Amino acid sequence: MNPDILRERQNATFDIEKLTNILDGGAERTNRRREIRELVGSCKGERYDQALREYGISDPVEINWYKSYVHRFRGNPLEIHLAMFLPTLLNQATPEQMDRFFTPSWDLEIIGTYAQTEMGHGTHLRGLETTATFDPATQEFVMHSPTVTSIKWWPGGLGKTSNHAIVLAQLYTQGKCHGLNAFIVPLRSMGTHMPLPGIVIGDIGPKFGFDAVDNGYLKLEHVRIPRENMLMKYAQVKPDGSYVKPLSSKLTYGTMVFIRSLIVGNAGIVLSQCCTIAIRYSAVRHQSEIRAGEAEPQILDYQTQQHKLFPLLATAYAFLFAGQYMIDTYNRISGDINQGDLSEMPELHALSAGLKAFTTWTANTGIEVCRMSCGGHGYSRSSALPDIYVEFTPSCTYEGENTVMMLQTARFLMKSYRQVQAGQQLSGAVSYLNKVHHRVMAPQAVSSQLDLNLNTLVDLYEIRAAMLVELAAQSIQQESARGKCQEDSWNNSTIDLVRASDAHCHYMVLKMFRDKVDQIEDPGVHSVMSTLAHLYAIHGMGNFTGDFLQAGVLTGAQVPSVSKCLKGLLAEVRPSAVLLVDAFDHHDKMLNSVLGRHDGNVYEAMFEWARSSPLNRTEVHESFHKHLKPLQAKL
Amino acid sequence: MNPDILRERQNATFDIEKLTNILDGGAERTNRRREIRELVGSCKGERYDQALREYGISDPVEINWYKSYVHRFRGNPLEIHLAMFLPTLLNQATPEQMDRFFTPSWDLEIIGTYAQTEMGHGTHLRGLETTATFDPATQEFVMHSPTVTSIKWWPGGLGKTSNHAIVLAQLYTQGKCHGLNAFIVPLRSMGTHMPLPGIVIGDIGPKFGFDAVDNGYLKLEHVRIPRENMLMKYAQVKPDGSYVKPLSSKLTYGTMVFIRSLIVGNAGIVLSQCCTIAIRYSAVRHQSEIRAGEAEPQILDYQTQQHKLFPLLATAYAFLFAGQYMIDTYNRISGDINQGDLSEMPELHALSAGLKAFTTWTANTGIEVCRMSCGGHGYSRSSALPDIYVEFTPSCTYEGENTVMMLQTARFLMKSYRQVQAGQQLSGAVSYLNKVHHRVMAPQAVSSQLDLNLNTLVDLYEIRAAMLVELAAQSIQQESARGKCQEDSWNNSTIDLVRASDAHCHYMVLKMFRDKVDQIEDPGVHSVMSTLAHLYAIHGMGNFTGDFLQAGVLTGAQVPSVSKCLKGLLAEVRPSAVLLVDAFDHHDKMLNSVLGRHDGNVYEAMFEWARSSPLNRTEVHESFHKHLKPLQAKL
Repeated sequence: MNPDILRERQNATFDIEKLTNILDGGAERTNRRREIRELVGSCKGERYDQALREYGISDPVEINWYKSYVHRFRGNPLEIHLAMFLPTLLNQATPEQMDRFFTPSWDLEIIGTYAQTEMGHGTHLRGLETTATFDPATQEFVMHSPTVTSIKWWPGGLGKTSNHAIVLAQLYTQGKCHGLNAFIVPLRSMGTHMPLPGIVIGDIGPKFGFDAVDNGYLKLEHVRIPRENMLMKYAQVKPDGSYVKPLSSKLTYGTMVFIRSLIVGNAGIVLSQCCTIAIRYSAVRHQSEIRAGEAEPQILDYQTQQHKLFPLLATAYAFLFAGQYMIDTYNRISGDINQGDLSEMPELHALSAGLKAFTTWTANTGIEVCRMSCGGHGYSRSSALPDIYVEFTPSCTYEGENTVMMLQTARFLMKSYRQVQAGQQLSGAVSYLNKVHHRVMAPQAVSSQLDLNLNTLVDLYEIRAAMLVELAAQSIQQESARGKCQEDSWNNSTIDLVRASDAHCHYMVLKMFRDKVDQIEDPGVHSVMSTLAHLYAIHGMGNFTGDFLQAGVLTGAQVPSVSKCLKGLLAEVRPSAVLLVDAFDHHDKMLNSVLGRHDGNVYEAMFEWARSSPLNRTEVHESFHKHLKPLQAKL
Repeated sequence: MNPDILRERQNATFDIEKLTNILDGGAERTNRRREIRELVGSCKGERYDQALREYGISDPVEINWYKSYVHRFRGNPLEIHLAMFLPTLLNQATPEQMDRFFTPSWDLEIIGTYAQTEMGHGTHLRGLETTATFDPATQEFVMHSPTVTSIKWWPGGLGKTSNHAIVLAQLYTQGKCHGLNAFIVPLRSMGTHMPLPGIVIGDIGPKFGFDAVDNGYLKLEHVRIPRENMLMKYAQVKPDGSYVKPLSSKLTYGTMVFIRSLIVGNAGIVLSQCCTIAIRYSAVRHQSEIRAGEAEPQILDYQTQQHKLFPLLATAYAFLFAGQYMIDTYNRISGDINQGDLSEMPELHALSAGLKAFTTWTANTGIEVCRMSCGGHGYSRSSALPDIYVEFTPSCTYEGENTVMMLQTARFLMKSYRQVQAGQQLSGAVSYLNKVHHRVMAPQAVSSQLDLNLNTLVDLYEIRAAMLVELAAQSIQQESARGKCQEDSWNNSTIDLVRASDAHCHYMVLKMFRDKVDQIEDPGVHSVMSTLAHLYAIHGMGNFTGDFLQAGVLTGAQVPSVSKCLKGLLAEVRPSAVLLVDAFDHHDKMLNSVLGRHDGNVYEAMFEWARSSPLNRTEVHESFHKHLKPLQAKL
C-alpha cells in the first residue's frame, strides 16, 4: 500500500464498518449488499433475470444494488426490456395478454422497449402526436406517425435490438380522441429480425455516452395491430369501438415517486464514487509547495482542494440519507398498496420531483469538480470520471426535466402558501410556512453573538426557504395586479419559483441529514458525521449568503465568521477524509478507477493501464504506413 | 426556412453586419475572416503549413481563426508539431541547430512534440524529475526517467506519431543541478519508425475527448544524445561541462501572456457557439403550455429558459471583448519587442492568469447549461454540444491549472494592496485599491432609490472587488497574528484569495464590456449591446447578492428590485435573441450542429443525421446474429 494512504488510515477516530452499516441500513444489509457484489463479480456477463430468479433478489433496493454492480449504471441494450417492458406488462396487461406476451418476453423471444418520447415532444406528455385509430371493420388499431416531430425517439434498445415495443399513442375511436394509451407493436420479424412493413426503424446515432445502447427511432406508417394489442387491464376499447376509462391513475403515480426517490439515492452514490476517487488521489498526489524548501505536500493539504472536495463529501452523505428517507417514506406510505393511506402521497410526490432535480443538478456539477480536482489525469478514462459523468448527466433530463420538476414542487409550495394565507394550519414538510407571517420578511434582530450550531442552522435554512416561498408568491401577486392573466403571472415568476423550490429542497436535505445524525449512537461516528452535517450547512450558507443577509438572520459584519467557521470545519474533516470515503465501501473492481484505488498505487496502475491500451498493441501504428509515410513522401 | 426562426429575423432593431464587424475589429477583418473560412471550406484536409505559406496567413489572430476553422479546436496528431515544436525551435535553437532540425521539421521528415508534463508533475515545473546529465568524456547528455512519476505524460502526438521530442529535463553538469533546460531527443528510427533503444513509448489510452490525438508517454532509460542537442540559443553547456546561464526569461513570459489571452477569446467563441445552438433551437422547439388551450409555445418564451441562456449570451459577448482587449493590450505593450516598454507586463501577466481561469470556468459551466437547455437532444452528438464540451474542458487545466492561475492573480492583488497600505498610489487596473480605506468595509449609506444603471454597476463591482481583496489581506494578517508562518497564512487564506481574484476579474470583464459599448457609434447596435452589458452586470449581481449586501451597497429590501430589473432585461433581450446569435456569424458547416442550423429545420436534419449513422448501414445489425440469436437459442 502507498505509504501516504496507509498513514491516512492510521489513528481513525471512528469505526468505519459502523458507518458503512448506517449507510446500508444495518449490518445485515451490508452483508447482503456485499453478497450481491460478490455474486456479480463471480458470474460476469450473466443476465439479470437469471440472477433475479436464482439468487432471490426481489427487493427493489436490492435490484438497484444488483444493477449498479452489473454495469455501474452504464446501460445495456436489454435494460429497457427488463426495467420497463416487463414491468409494464405486469402492471397493465390482461391475463390473456400475459399469456401471449409475458412468457415469450421472459424467455427473450420477445425483446421489447418502451416508446414514449417523440422527436418533438418530451416531458409534456399531452403533446405526443402518434395516433392509434380504431378500425371496427377489421378490429384493428392503425398506428401512425403523422409528422416528423411525431417519430418516436430515444427509447433504449429500439434501434437494433428490440422486436416489439410498447408504444404510447393518442387513442382515436368513434371519432373522438381519448388521450394516451399503451399498445404492443411488433417491430421486427421473429425469424429474420427484419423490420416489418410500415416500420421505419434505426439507431439515433452517436451520443455523449451510452455507446453500447442502441437508442432508436421509430416511424409508424399506418401499421395495423389487433385490437387485443392495446394494454387493457385498466382502459379498454370494446369491439364496437366504445371506450372504457381506467378507474384511477394512482398506481403509476406511485411508480414515478419510487423511481425519483431511487434517483435521489443514486445521486448520492455517484457523488460518493467521485469523492472516493478524488480524495484518495489527492492523498497520494504531491504537487508544488506550501513552505519553501520543504517536500511537495499532498494536494489534500491545500485549502482550495479541501474546499472543492469536502463539501461534496458532505453532500454525498446528505444525498445518501435523503435517498434512504425517500424510500422509507414511500414504503411507509404505500405499505400494502390496498390498505395504505395515501393522503401523504401528494406531498411526497412534490418532494420527490424537487429533490430529483436538486440532487441530480448538484451531483452533476460535483462530478466535474471532482474530475477537474484531479488535474489532467481526471481527463483520462483511466480515472473513470469521464464515464461517470456522461452516464449520470442524462438523469438531469430524463424522468422529468429538472426545471419542470422544480416547478412542480413550486406548485405545491404555492398551494400550501395560499392555504396558510387562508388561515389553514399546515402539517408535514411545509409546516414551516405556518410561521411565515410572524418571522419572515421583516429583517430580524440579529444577535450580536452569531450562533452557527447545527440546529440553529436548520432553523435559518427554514427561514430562508419561507422567505423565498413568500417572495415567489408575491411576484405572482404583483404580476396579477399588473393585469397579467394567471398563466403569464406564473411564467413571469418562474425564476423566483425555482429558487423557492431549491431552497425548500436544500432545507429538507439538511433537516434529513441532521435527523439522521441525531439517531447515530456510536460516539465516534456521531462526532464525525456531526462535523460533516455542519459542513454541509455552513458551506451552503457561504454559497447563498445573500439569501441569509436578505432574510435578516445575518449581518454583513458577521459574514467573515461564516467563512472562518467553514475553514475550521475543513481542517476538522481533513484527518478523516480518506476514512470517510473508505466507509462508502466502493470495491476497486466496481469503481474501476486507477486514481481511486484503495491501495493508492496510482502511478504504477496508470502506466500499466496505458501500456495495455488499444493503440499500443503494435509499436508502430498502422496510421504511420497509411498516412504519415505518404505525407512525408509527397514533400 | 422554418417559419418560427424566419419570424425571429423580421423587424430587427439593429444592423447585424455592423455588430459582426465590431466583433471582428472592423469590416475589413470580417472579410478577411470569411476569406479564411472559405479557404478552409474549399481545401479540406490540407495542411497548416501549406496554407500558412500559400495564403499569407501570418498574423497570430488569423492563425487562430484558421485553426479554429480547420478542426474546430478538435486537435490532430500534428498539432503540437506545428504549434509547439516548430515555434520552440525558432525561439531557442542556435543557427546550427536550425539547419540541422528546422528544415527537416518543416518538411515533416522530423515530426516533433513538446514533452514537459510528467506523470507525477504538472503545473509546478520545478518538481519535474527527468534528468539530463552531461558526460564530458563522450560529449553527450544522458537522458533518464529515474522514477515512475518522472515518465513524460500527455504530450500530443507523442504516442505514435512523433519521431522526435523536445524534452524538458533537469540539467546536471559538473556535479550540480542547473534546473530545467530543453533537449532534442530522437525517439523513433527515421526509416522504420520503430522506437530507438532506451525509448519506452506509447499512447496513454482513451480520454474524455480528443480521440484522434495520440497523447503519449515516454520513459527514457539512459538515452544518450550529443551535447549539440541541447537548445543553446540562451543557456549553454560548454564542452568542458561548464554551464552558461541565459540572460533573461522575458520572452517566454510574453508568449504565456499571449496564449492565455487567446484562451480568453476562445472561451468567448465557444460560448458564442453554444448560445447559437441553444437559442436557435429554443426558437424552433415548442413544448408544454403557458396558457391553457393555446398552442405549445416556443421554449424561448419560458422565463426559465431565458434565464439560462440570455446571461450566457451576454457573457459570450463580454468574453469576446475581453479577449480583444487582452490581445490589443499585449500588442501595444510588446510592440516591437526590442523597443517596447515592458513595465506594464507584470500587470497584464497577472490579469491574463486570472482571466484565463475566470473565463474558462464560466464557459465550461455555460456549455453544459446550453446543452441541458436543449433537453434530450443536447445529449446527441448531432447537437455538437457534447464534442464542444469535451474539447473545451481541458482548457481549465492546461496552460496553468485554474486555481493556481487565480492564486497568481491574487499574489499580484496582495502585493498591490500592501503598496497602498504603504502609502503608494497605484495606477492601471488595480487603481481602485487606492480608495480601499475610504469607502469599503464600513457599510455604506445606501440611497433609498436604488440606482442600477450600467455605470453605477461598474462602480459597485469595483467596491465588491476592493472589499474581497481587503478581506483576503485581513485573513492573511489574522493568520500571521496567530503565529502562523507566512506560507501557512497564505494557504489558510486561499479560499478568500480565489474569491478576491474572481471578483477582480469579474469587475475587469464588466468594465471592458462597458468601455467597448461606449465606443459603439451606431445607435441600434449601441442600444442592444447596452442592454446586454446591463444584463451581464445585473445577472452577476443576482448571483453574488451576498457580496453586495456585505459591502453595504445594497439592502435586503432592495434585492427584489434587482430581480425585477433582471426579468425586465430578459424580456428586453427576447426579441433580439436570434439576431444576436446570428451576429456571431458561425457558419453551419463550422458549427456542424443539427440544432443550431441557420434555417431552423432541426427535425428533418436530425432524422437525416440519424439515418446515416454508422449502426444503420444494415437493417439487421451483426450483433443480432452474434449475440442475440445465440442468447435466445440457449433458453
